[in-house]
Amino acid sequence: MIFKDHHIISMTSFSKDMIDHILETAEKMEPIALGKQKSDLLSGKVLAVLFFEPSTRTRMSFETAMYRLGGDVLNLGSVDASSIAKGETLADTIRVVDSYADAIVLRHPREGAAFLASEFSTVPILNAGDGAGHHPTQTLLDLYTIKRQSHLDGLKIALAGDLKYGRTVHSLCYALSLYGAQITMISPPELRMPEEIINDLENRGAKVTEVESIEEAIGEVDVLYMTRIQKERFPDPAEYQKVANRLKITTDLLKDAKQELRIMHPLPRVNEIHPDVDDTVHACYFKQAFYGVPVRMALVALVLGAIE
Amino acid sequence: MIFKDHHIISMTSFSKDMIDHILETAEKMEPIALGKQKSDLLSGKVLAVLFFEPSTRTRMSFETAMYRLGGDVLNLGSVDASSIAKGETLADTIRVVDSYADAIVLRHPREGAAFLASEFSTVPILNAGDGAGHHPTQTLLDLYTIKRQSHLDGLKIALAGDLKYGRTVHSLCYALSLYGAQITMISPPELRMPEEIINDLENRGAKVTEVESIEEAIGEVDVLYMTRIQKERFPDPAEYQKVANRLKITTDLLKDAKQELRIMHPLPRVNEIHPDVDDTVHACYFKQAFYGVPVRMALVALVLGAIE
Amino acid sequence: MIFKDHHIISMTSFSKDMIDHILETAEKMEPIALGKQKSDLLSGKVLAVLFFEPSTRTRMSFETAMYRLGGDVLNLGSVDASSIAKGETLADTIRVVDSYADAIVLRHPREGAAFLASEFSTVPILNAGDGAGHHPTQTLLDLYTIKRQSHLDGLKIALAGDLKYGRTVHSLCYALSLYGAQITMISPPELRMPEEIINDLENRGAKVTEVESIEEAIGEVDVLYMTRIQKERFPDPAEYQKVANRLKITTDLLKDAKQELRIMHPLPRVNEIHPDVDDTVHACYFKQAFYGVPVRMALVALVLGAIE
Repeated sequence: MIFKDHHIISMTSFSKDMIDHILETAEKMEPIALGKQKSDLLSGKVLAVLFFEPSTRTRMSFETAMYRLGGDVLNLGSVDASSIAKGETLADTIRVVDSYADAIVLRHPREGAAFLASEFSTVPILNAGDGAGHHPTQTLLDLYTIKRQSHLDGLKIALAGDLKYGRTVHSLCYALSLYGAQITMISPPELRMPEEIINDLENRGAKVTEVESIEEAIGEVDVLYMTRIQKERFPDPAEYQKVANRLKITTDLLKDAKQELRIMHPLPRVNEIHPDVDDTVHACYFKQAFYGVPVRMALVALVLGAIE
Repeated sequence: MIFKDHHIISMTSFSKDMIDHILETAEKMEPIALGKQKSDLLSGKVLAVLFFEPSTRTRMSFETAMYRLGGDVLNLGSVDASSIAKGETLADTIRVVDSYADAIVLRHPREGAAFLASEFSTVPILNAGDGAGHHPTQTLLDLYTIKRQSHLDGLKIALAGDLKYGRTVHSLCYALSLYGAQITMISPPELRMPEEIINDLENRGAKVTEVESIEEAIGEVDVLYMTRIQKERFPDPAEYQKVANRLKITTDLLKDAKQELRIMHPLPRVNEIHPDVDDTVHACYFKQAFYGVPVRMALVALVLGAIE
Repeated sequence: MIFKDHHIISMTSFSKDMIDHILETAEKMEPIALGKQKSDLLSGKVLAVLFFEPSTRTRMSFETAMYRLGGDVLNLGSVDASSIAKGETLADTIRVVDSYADAIVLRHPREGAAFLASEFSTVPILNAGDGAGHHPTQTLLDLYTIKRQSHLDGLKIALAGDLKYGRTVHSLCYALSLYGAQITMISPPELRMPEEIINDLENRGAKVTEVESIEEAIGEVDVLYMTRIQKERFPDPAEYQKVANRLKITTDLLKDAKQELRIMHPLPRVNEIHPDVDDTVHACYFKQAFYGVPVRMALVALVLGAIE
């Protein structure tokens, strides 16, 4: 399987075999990601990180992935302090940076930015989120978390929160449909998963159920994936508060859960998960954040052709 | 003496033996800090620097310490460009970053932040200043400067400036009391060292004198430690100006000093030390800034268990 | 030829022999810059980059130059987040940073800042632009581009745009006069090359012609060097627009050009070069941006004494 020189723009370009290969590669990277094993696989290589939007976790985990593999990171820095302030187009920025670095991680507020960048770049583009578009490395680390902390085959998963606008949730569902997952959608009526997506998922082999409260699903599932509900989606703050209160995880709620239940969250969380939950065996979100490192190590090493 | 996996939060947790061990370790690091000797002691290791407040010297000297030892640095970057802007708690940030890095340097405006971070972190926290709280690496580099450019045992030192609010000065005095120092406090009445601290210092073995002008002490001391007086402390700008003018070092003032006198300052200075003083044998503040590198190399290498 | 410990402040201190030596050294660096060859020539070395003004290309190419040679980069970061916000002088900043790093790259809005820094620094200063002053590494990469993509001896070059205020253009012309170039100046009357400079250039061996449109020169020259015209130079926006429209490159304009014509631009471009030109054999500006890497590798390695 050849990933060398490929752009990583969206999950839609990945077959199940390709995903499995990335996850297996990530697993080999884990001891290095944990700092238990040294590597100079990418020594002499330079990864450019161009973040046109805030992000701690994604940027830092890409950077640490590169460092753990012996490589270096070239950071665009804050956009204000760059040529972009002088009105340079993204295409021009990419055509300069691609001659400084061996691969480019791009985060951009505009949907389609990563694809546009890939049209101009002579080095692999890794999409680290393009607005309402795609964020494939998040989906891959979510899948990796499920694989490592639960199981991908025969998975029963519930997704809770904003299922209408949450791009990572859509992307994750498509990927899970490849594994025939049983997916329970938990959301307030205003933020339901779009009908077309549900149809798509069912056509691809997923089983989909919809409920309105976490209680209805908590006893059945292997994984509960929580997401943040953005206040901005609601014209009325009182309405937001009502919805937000309903979709919260507490230790009390977890008394009906299976021992094996794993709770995931892309972070940062605001109030969706009570801090008491952190100390239970179910909490899995900080582990999930860590798993971004081996997954991104795998991706960078694969597109640079350092491994196959 | 085992520092591995220890947090460095405040000077109060260090015995004299521990301080001596750190200073001796720093001395071994000096040739590497000067770039005269290469090292890969920390190769493959990642140090995260989380600065929630401006700092040039502290951050850069930690970073260069890491680079000189062959390690890498993961920078949170400006706080605006991070998840903290999305309302993440410090505890959550720490629990993510501790899985990306082998140790975390934290600077935070809130007193107690470093201790809080240490409660959640699985890797060593190095406190690089927490508001009105502690700044132990500054104290250690001050002690190292005194050791290298003067002597710790039987030291006669004068401290001048804001002795009321200056946290680094308090911390330094406590440490010096372990070595039985004779300490002369020089400050305007408004900014005197608090009575309780003076009592504490005397109980621990220091001899303390108080005067109001540098002239009264300059002939006697081995070290004169200047600090910045912050304008914000004075409701009346004229009052500030009067005080600031009185606590200034000029070459003229130095004609009564011993040849061995060393002048220290944590920097940045504003007007406390006239530039002409820079060319005298007494000036020691830039050397002091440099000494931050070997001291921080020692601390990072110790808490990572790369040396004992 | 000994560059070790030399500051790189302005082109005026370079003889033709010195320039030739830098360009030859850059040529040896090219395979490493392209990532085709690994190097640890500068391993253990630290380069500080102090950018008091925005810049993508210059900063990133210095950083990548350092990484490709196995060295590390210490970044001052945004000026707001540094001691400079506390009122520290440039001299003091330099005297601290020179003890953290083996060389310092400085970009500063104030003319003469790099020279001032060199007066205080114990390590080499590399001027990366000081306001209306100098930007020698840009000139060197321009010369390198001409050498690699065209030829320096017997060169016919046209410079178009703002020739009055453009510091890089002045500096490039002086350097080209050492090679006896035939220089055609293309600018609106308001932005003509200053008379004294033209006299200087002719005294040094250059042949200078002045015209007002690109059409008059395009058929003759080996290199066309475009520059940005800054709106701020014109009190009247309509006047700016008129001038800007006249000095634009389109594929249509290029039908009279020699096959060997190379178009250069320091980037970022705004509207001076139509995107269609990018696909012609003449476009050379992205290559030019890349050439910043080998040239800066050569400079850093030379001043650090890693090569001679």
